[in-house]
Amino acid sequence: MKKLMDKYISEVDATISHAITTSDLGTNLEESMTYSLTAGGKRIRPVLLLLTLDMLTNDYKKGLAPALGVEMIHTYSLIHDDLPAMDNDDYRRGKLTNHKVYGEWKAILAGDALLTKAFEVVSHDDSLTDSVKIKLIKRLSSASGHIGMVGGQTLDMQSENTSIDVTTLEQIHRAKTGALISFAVMGAVDIAQPDETVARALSDYSDHIGLMFQIKDDLLDVYGDEQKLGKSVGSDIENDKSTYVSLLGLEGAEQKLQYHTDAAYNCLAQLPDQYDTSALKYIIELFINRES
Amino acid sequence: MKKLMDKYISEVDATISHAITTSDLGTNLEESMTYSLTAGGKRIRPVLLLLTLDMLTNDYKKGLAPALGVEMIHTYSLIHDDLPAMDNDDYRRGKLTNHKVYGEWKAILAGDALLTKAFEVVSHDDSLTDSVKIKLIKRLSSASGHIGMVGGQTLDMQSENTSIDVTTLEQIHRAKTGALISFAVMGAVDIAQPDETVARALSDYSDHIGLMFQIKDDLLDVYGDEQKLGKSVGSDIENDKSTYVSLLGLEGAEQKLQYHTDAAYNCLAQLPDQYDTSALKYIIELFINRES
Repeated sequence: MKKLMDKYISEVDATISHAITTSDLGTNLEESMTYSLTAGGKRIRPVLLLLTLDMLTNDYKKGLAPALGVEMIHTYSLIHDDLPAMDNDDYRRGKLTNHKVYGEWKAILAGDALLTKAFEVVSHDDSLTDSVKIKLIKRLSSASGHIGMVGGQTLDMQSENTSIDVTTLEQIHRAKTGALISFAVMGAVDIAQPDETVARALSDYSDHIGLMFQIKDDLLDVYGDEQKLGKSVGSDIENDKSTYVSLLGLEGAEQKLQYHTDAAYNCLAQLPDQYDTSALKYIIELFINRES
Repeated sequence: MKKLMDKYISEVDATISHAITTSDLGTNLEESMTYSLTAGGKRIRPVLLLLTLDMLTNDYKKGLAPALGVEMIHTYSLIHDDLPAMDNDDYRRGKLTNHKVYGEWKAILAGDALLTKAFEVVSHDDSLTDSVKIKLIKRLSSASGHIGMVGGQTLDMQSENTSIDVTTLEQIHRAKTGALISFAVMGAVDIAQPDETVARALSDYSDHIGLMFQIKDDLLDVYGDEQKLGKSVGSDIENDKSTYVSLLGLEGAEQKLQYHTDAAYNCLAQLPDQYDTSALKYIIELFINRES
C-alpha cells in the first residue's frame, strides 16, 4: 500500500512540475508559485482523491486535474497563513516560507495566482465533461471560500487568545482543514458518480478523517518529534491556543481520535463489496500513526 | 444612454447586495467582503459585460453571474493592492481601505474569499449551460491569474523605480487592467456565441478600450481634479512611476489615446448592421471623457 501511495505521489509531483507554465511577462512569479508547490508537501489531498477515484472506477487518471487544483489551493493557503500579518512563520517543513524567499508582496500575489490557477486547471482538463467540471468547481469553491477554508481560518484567527468550546473548535477544523480533505474524497465522487448511498458513506468518511487529521495534529504538538515534524512542539500551549488537548485533556483527545477512527472504518464497511476499500483503510491508519 | 448605464449599475448593485450570504461561522468576514464590494466602485466591468451581451442578444440577464464574478475579482485585487506590503494605501475612492477598517489579516482573507466566490458564483448560475460556464471560467481564470491580472501587478511592482519602455508599459497594462476589461466584453461573447468575425472585432475593441482606460488614468494623474478623482494627482511623478505621460510626454500620450479611440470605433464599425453599437460607442466616449 505504501508503494501505491508513492506511485500516486510521484504522479502528482510529475503533474505539478509542469503545471505552472511561465508567462511572457518576465517576472519570477511562476518560480515563487512553484517554490511553494514543491516545498515538500505530503500530497495528502491529491493522493486521497486519486485513491478514492481508483476505488470507484479503477481509473484514477481523470482525477489528476482536481487533485492538482486542491493541492494548489492548499499551498496558497499555507503561503498566506505564513505571512507576517497572519502566523508570521519563517519556516515550513524545514524550508524558508515563501515571503522569506520572495518578499511579502510577491508571496501575496503567488498565493492569489495559485488560487486562481486551481480553477484554471480544472476548467481546462480535457478528460472530464463540462458537467463534471462544473460539479468540481462548485465543490472546490465552496470548500475553499468564506463558508469553507477561508471562513475557518478567519474563525481560527479570531479565536486566538480567547476561550472557545469544543463545538467551536470542531467548526473551525471542519471549515479550515476538513473542507479540503472532504473535497478530495467527494471530488472523486463527482467524477465517478456512484450511488447516493455510496456518496453519503464517503462523505461521512471524509468528515471523520478530516477531524482525525486535526486531533492528531493537536496530539503531535504535545508528544511529537520535532525533527520529524519539522517544527517545534508545544507551540499551541505557548500560544495559548485552544486545541483538542487543551479542551479535553490528552486522554479525552485520544478518545475522540478513536471515536472518529472507528466511525471512519464503519463508513467504509457500509460500501458494497465491489469496492476494494483497502487504500482508504490505509489512509485511516496513516492518519492515526503519522509522526509528521 | 446615461439612463441605460444607470439601470445596469442598479441591477449590478442589487445583485451584489445579496451576493455574499453569511456563513454560520459567526465572523465578520462577509461584512468585510461586502464593505469593499460596495465601496463606490464604478461597475465598469460588469456594465460593459451586460451592455455587450444586450447588444448581441437583447438579453443581458444571462450576464449577471459573470458580471458579478468579474467585479468580485476586481474588488479583491484592489483590497490586496492596497495592503501595506503592496501600495500601502489608507484610502480608496474617499473611503478607508479594507485593511484600515478590518485589519491586515482579515483584508488578505476577504480578498481570498472574494476571488474564490467569483468562481462559485459563475459555476452556480442556473441560466447558463455547463458548457458556457466552463468557457467563462477558463477565460476568467486566465484573465485574472499569473498570465493576466496578477502577472501584470507583479510586473508593475517589479518595475517600480526602474526605467521601462513603452512596450513593457503596455505589457503591464494589458495584463493588469486590460485582461479583466477584455473579459467583460468577451465573457458576453462566450454567452452569445456570435460569428467568429464578430468575436474578433469585439476582442480587438476590448483591447483598445483597455489601453484607453489606462492612458486616461495616466493623464488624469497629471491634469485631473483631485476632488473628482478621490485621490491626489501627481502621485505618479512623485513615486517616479513610468507612465504613458512620463515615457511619451503629454502630447504623445494624448496622441496614443486618440489612436486607440479611433481603433476602437473602427472595430465597432466592422460589426454587422444587425447590432446596435451605440452603447459600446458610449463606453468609448465615457473612457475619453471620464474625470474620475
